[in-house]
Amino acid sequence: MSGHKTTRLVEVRTKILKENDVAARALRQRFEDEGVFVVSLVSSPGAGKTMFLEQTLLRLRERYRVAALVGDLATENDAQRLARAGVPIRQICTGTVCHLEADMVRTALRDVDTAKLDFLFIENVGNLVCPASYDLGEALRLVLFSVTEGEDKPLKYPTIFNTADICVLTKMDLADVVEFDHASALNSVQAVRPGMQVLDVSAKSGVGMDAWIETLCGRAAR
Amino acid sequence: MSGHKTTRLVEVRTKILKENDVAARALRQRFEDEGVFVVSLVSSPGAGKTMFLEQTLLRLRERYRVAALVGDLATENDAQRLARAGVPIRQICTGTVCHLEADMVRTALRDVDTAKLDFLFIENVGNLVCPASYDLGEALRLVLFSVTEGEDKPLKYPTIFNTADICVLTKMDLADVVEFDHASALNSVQAVRPGMQVLDVSAKSGVGMDAWIETLCGRAAR
Repeated sequence: MSGHKTTRLVEVRTKILKENDVAARALRQRFEDEGVFVVSLVSSPGAGKTMFLEQTLLRLRERYRVAALVGDLATENDAQRLARAGVPIRQICTGTVCHLEADMVRTALRDVDTAKLDFLFIENVGNLVCPASYDLGEALRLVLFSVTEGEDKPLKYPTIFNTADICVLTKMDLADVVEFDHASALNSVQAVRPGMQVLDVSAKSGVGMDAWIETLCGRAAR
Repeated sequence: MSGHKTTRLVEVRTKILKENDVAARALRQRFEDEGVFVVSLVSSPGAGKTMFLEQTLLRLRERYRVAALVGDLATENDAQRLARAGVPIRQICTGTVCHLEADMVRTALRDVDTAKLDFLFIENVGNLVCPASYDLGEALRLVLFSVTEGEDKPLKYPTIFNTADICVLTKMDLADVVEFDHASALNSVQAVRPGMQVLDVSAKSGVGMDAWIETLCGRAAR
C-alpha cells in the first residue's frame, strides 16, 4: 500500500471514528439519563451470542423491562430466534458493513422509548476485529468466545479483548469433548487484559447463567 | 453517517480495492507462470483453518513441494503450529488490519522462490466479512465453517461464500454432539451459492481429508 493512500485512509478512518465517538457519547448520556443499562455483545460468528442472549432475556424478563437490537450483514434470523424470549427485538441489517456503529444504534432506536427499559442489549455482527473500534454508548461490553474456538483467541485478537469489560467463555458443555484447556484460556485472557473478569457459561445446559445474571445486576446497580 | 463522509469513504475504499485487484492480478500471473497452485483459506476465528491446513500439508509433503503463509493480527502461534508439518511457513502479522491484502502476500514472498513450489497455501485472518473483498491472486479460495458455528452462517455472511470456490465443513467429529443439521447447512450454502461444492471433514479424526486432497489435486491438474 502506498504511503499516500495509507495516509488518506487513516485520515478518513480517524474522522469516522471521531464522529462515531461523538455519537456514542450522546447515546451514553441519553441511556444514563434514562436509567437504562446497555450491554453490547461481540464475538466471532457462531460463538453463541444469540443463544446466550436469548437465555439472558428469558431470565431477566420476569423482573425487568428488557429489549434487544441484533446486528447482522443479512437475514433477520437472530431477531426471529430472540423473539421467542417474548421481549421487543429489532434487527439491524448492515449490508456489507462488518460492525455496528453508534449511528446505526441511534437510528434503530428512533421510535423506541428507551426510558421505559431497565436493560437494552446490543448484539454486534459476528467479527472479532472491526467492532473493537466502535463505541456504541454501551455501559458494559461483553466479549464472548466459545471453547470450540481455541484457547489462544485473546492473544490473536487482542484489541477486542482490550475494549471489552467482561469475557464470557461459552459452550462450556462442549469443553470436555474438545479437550478445552481452561487454564490456558485464562492465561491468554490475563496476558492481554490483566484482571479481566471471566465467566464460564453454557446457555444450552444453563451452567453459569445465574452467576452471569447476578454479575450483570450487580454492575447495573453500581 | 453523513452522505459526504460516506461518499469519501466509498471513494477511498474503491481506490484501495482497485489497487488490490491490480496487485492480485500480477500475483496470479506470476503463480501461473511459475506453475504453483495457490489456495487461500477464509473462515471465522476458531473454525479450524490451522488444523485443517496442518493436516493438508502433512498429506501433501511426501509427494509435493508445499509452503504456507498465515495471517493473524498478532502472534506467531499459527506459524509455530504449522511448522510441525515440516514445510516452509511464514507468518504475516497484520497489526490491526482485519484481512490480508495482495501486497502483504507479495511482500511476504519477496525472498521466496515460489517457482520451486507445487502448492502454496495462504491462511487469512479469522474473519467472515472483510477478507471477502480482497483478491490475493489465489487459484482456489476455500471458505471453512465448523459444525459448532450454526447452520445459517452462509445466509448471514453471504459475500464471503460468494467469493469462495469450495465450502469446507469442519469439525465433523463434533456434528452429533452439537446436533448439527447437515441438510439445513447444505440448504444455506446452496441458497447463497447454488452449485457450490461442499466437503465434510474432520482434521482431527481424518474423516474426509483424503477426499479433499483428491479434489485439490484434481483442481490443480486442470
